[in-house]
Amino acid sequence: MPTSDIGLIGLAVMGRNLALNMADHGYRVAVYNRTTAKTEAFMEEEGRAAGIASTTTLEELVDLLETPRRVMLMVQAGPGTDAVIGQLLELLDEGDIIIDGGNAHYEDTIRRTREIEERGFLFIGTGVSGGEEGARYGPSIMPGGSVAAWPAVKDVLQAISAKVADGTPCCDWVGSDGAGHYVKMVHNGIEYGDMQVLAEAYSLMHVGLGMSYDDLAATFRAWKDGPLDSYLTDITADIMAVPDEDGEPLLEKVLDAAGQKGTGKWTGISSLTLGVPVTLVAEAVFARVLSALKDQRVAAADVLTGPDRGIDGDRADIVSDIHDALYGSKIVSYAQGFMLLRAAAAEYGWSLDYGSIAYLWREGCIIRSVLLEHIKAAFDRAPDIASLVIDDYFRLELEQALPGWRRTVVRAVEAGIPVPAYSAALAFYDGYRTARLPANLIQAQRDYFGAHTYERVDRPRGEFFHTEWLDNLGRSGPNQG
Amino acid sequence: MPTSDIGLIGLAVMGRNLALNMADHGYRVAVYNRTTAKTEAFMEEEGRAAGIASTTTLEELVDLLETPRRVMLMVQAGPGTDAVIGQLLELLDEGDIIIDGGNAHYEDTIRRTREIEERGFLFIGTGVSGGEEGARYGPSIMPGGSVAAWPAVKDVLQAISAKVADGTPCCDWVGSDGAGHYVKMVHNGIEYGDMQVLAEAYSLMHVGLGMSYDDLAATFRAWKDGPLDSYLTDITADIMAVPDEDGEPLLEKVLDAAGQKGTGKWTGISSLTLGVPVTLVAEAVFARVLSALKDQRVAAADVLTGPDRGIDGDRADIVSDIHDALYGSKIVSYAQGFMLLRAAAAEYGWSLDYGSIAYLWREGCIIRSVLLEHIKAAFDRAPDIASLVIDDYFRLELEQALPGWRRTVVRAVEAGIPVPAYSAALAFYDGYRTARLPANLIQAQRDYFGAHTYERVDRPRGEFFHTEWLDNLGRSGPNQG
Repeated sequence: MPTSDIGLIGLAVMGRNLALNMADHGYRVAVYNRTTAKTEAFMEEEGRAAGIASTTTLEELVDLLETPRRVMLMVQAGPGTDAVIGQLLELLDEGDIIIDGGNAHYEDTIRRTREIEERGFLFIGTGVSGGEEGARYGPSIMPGGSVAAWPAVKDVLQAISAKVADGTPCCDWVGSDGAGHYVKMVHNGIEYGDMQVLAEAYSLMHVGLGMSYDDLAATFRAWKDGPLDSYLTDITADIMAVPDEDGEPLLEKVLDAAGQKGTGKWTGISSLTLGVPVTLVAEAVFARVLSALKDQRVAAADVLTGPDRGIDGDRADIVSDIHDALYGSKIVSYAQGFMLLRAAAAEYGWSLDYGSIAYLWREGCIIRSVLLEHIKAAFDRAPDIASLVIDDYFRLELEQALPGWRRTVVRAVEAGIPVPAYSAALAFYDGYRTARLPANLIQAQRDYFGAHTYERVDRPRGEFFHTEWLDNLGRSGPNQG
Repeated sequence: MPTSDIGLIGLAVMGRNLALNMADHGYRVAVYNRTTAKTEAFMEEEGRAAGIASTTTLEELVDLLETPRRVMLMVQAGPGTDAVIGQLLELLDEGDIIIDGGNAHYEDTIRRTREIEERGFLFIGTGVSGGEEGARYGPSIMPGGSVAAWPAVKDVLQAISAKVADGTPCCDWVGSDGAGHYVKMVHNGIEYGDMQVLAEAYSLMHVGLGMSYDDLAATFRAWKDGPLDSYLTDITADIMAVPDEDGEPLLEKVLDAAGQKGTGKWTGISSLTLGVPVTLVAEAVFARVLSALKDQRVAAADVLTGPDRGIDGDRADIVSDIHDALYGSKIVSYAQGFMLLRAAAAEYGWSLDYGSIAYLWREGCIIRSVLLEHIKAAFDRAPDIASLVIDDYFRLELEQALPGWRRTVVRAVEAGIPVPAYSAALAFYDGYRTARLPANLIQAQRDYFGAHTYERVDRPRGEFFHTEWLDNLGRSGPNQG
């Protein structure tokens, strides 16, 4: 007999915390986990006290749910998800809803939406960000999939989500099929970028200026009172202050070989595939990859020379410039991320509300920050803006940041301290505001060696020209030249 | 009755020229094209005089070939290639060899090798570079696939290929299944990078220094006498000198919106997938993409501010520094490309000879240059070298280039002229020679918000630690902080 509002499958930490979060908000939750011992442990530790119902088979779970049934999966992405969906489809009735809250690739979610709808069921693929803490007390939730399912899941997903100060839930409908997981992927890509720009500031201040961890903690803490106010700035300040058992800064003991779980790569791959210059995220992914080549770097450090000097000058001024470099780079990174979303919307037929997406990220997730408030406002002003860098607010913010940003890159280059994200973002900014780039040479080269043709600045677009470049020089080939 | 040594399918310009090239070298060639009119036109124009045999059906083509038959496809990559292969397999006998000389994706070539071998035939997927001219008089040829087929195709492919000065053919066995097309893909990615570093030099000299096209032509021509001696430097010098009908430089009339055919993207995607920091090629691809956003750039140029000033100083010194920036960046790009090849070899089980690959590119192809001579020598000295940047020769070349390279990036940043490739390559170099990068912060952040754990510098690799960072600060959460 139905006694539960929603079912949740998969009791790893994210699933457990989402179930407790739902129960907190008055929903009657039934849970299932393939390993029953895990279910029992959860019930004993927290589930029973929260009034959650446990089941030992999928049949039992399905029988407990009010119809149309809502079953949320928090299981491993990939074949594991397909396996559970396959079993569920044998048990559900037409119109029932499967919600995949795992880290699925958007192409899988596109496929699953199609397959599941074809069999008469509804499917939601949703990004969930915020880690364990977010899942328990209010994550950012990015649902996409079968639009017909949204009214039936809206209440519970919005109830458990984080809220912006004005009460807006950090959960709203993103778009059809893979849109939700795509937006989550871009969120994660931007997260890679946000972490890299903080790391470059740390490097410049610690290696370049020789600042102590106390000073670093105070600096990042102070930045929280300005436009860099964000969760990641906050935890960076925390991290600087944490001592190891011997009283020394723990961060000094952490190995500088960054791991990753793939969503940053996915973002880079999608930006290459769709042809959008998301350079900062790509450089952030490559920076992690390079960091992981620890042994090669240690060996190379012995033989490759550099300036091997610190950064000279007034420390307060230099730190202020680093702040501006970080801030300018971060604005560019978000501008690039939203350009990617716009291209994806066109490619996959999604109707995305960019201001709403900024608000989904405003609280609850890893990249939550005050910057997203301004991004929401920019899209409210101009929903069709080609890039955030030309928005009036961000344009002026960039204008103020640029002198310090340029000085920072110059100092880093002169000191031999790598700032791949700051310099890539600056190159993008300078390229984006350049009416004429040297790509005319690239087109001429392609036409020279491959007869790929070119367009002309004095003729309409779409008219293509080919030149026999050598004939114009009275020569027959470069090798004979 | 068999009267031909090799069959060639597909009479677009590359196929025509390869057929003529084979005939020049004494091979009896039979050709086929789906549209017979194209075959007839080719025979009339050049084929008959070259002693080439024409056919109007695939059956006829197959009947003309000595066994084991060798059939080379120069048809459109993708489904078109699969269609022709499917028809051929119905007509061939066990042990016959299909050679795909198109621009196939290496994953398709891996699949085709497996499928074709399973049916008892042999398959070669080969990169062919050098454009029309190369195909006619000596391309670079990069064959992979069924190793058992190599002895039967070696003579003809090496005969028609370009040759290094010492007589070594720019054609040698690369490796199993997709290895040949993978190496061709990386060649093309490097080509994107080579073109971008030339474009940045053009931009700095023309926009930054205000140099005339006569001076530009002379400068690129002069660079040909040094370490930048290459086909692409050569044609760049040519291009600078070509006038439009009105006598003005033609290059000024070429639209700065670069096209692409995808192999650069593939290289970027593979480097992200395999986790190799091939940053210069990625930035070159993104630079093309950004150039193609011409309308956005023109609009942004009106509202986004920059330094809007040229580069001041002694022109000869500045040009010399630009030379060094280009040269240093180019070395890094090749180092990154060969790092990618090494990772791909490990991933796909190929046994690649990196020195031999450098020699395949030494002549005949778009990236041919003297640099490849030194790369060959470096791999001869140390076949297992982790990266070319630590090779003794390149290490010293980089050491000499670095001061000017750094000054060039500094000047570009101060002048607001984008040099994404020069700065990305420099950031890579500085990162690669840095024993301790700030990625420890990234690992600490990941452990803070996601309990992803970290390794320690004072403990063996493979031992993972987790810290409750907030507990160490006596706080319960950043949002409550």
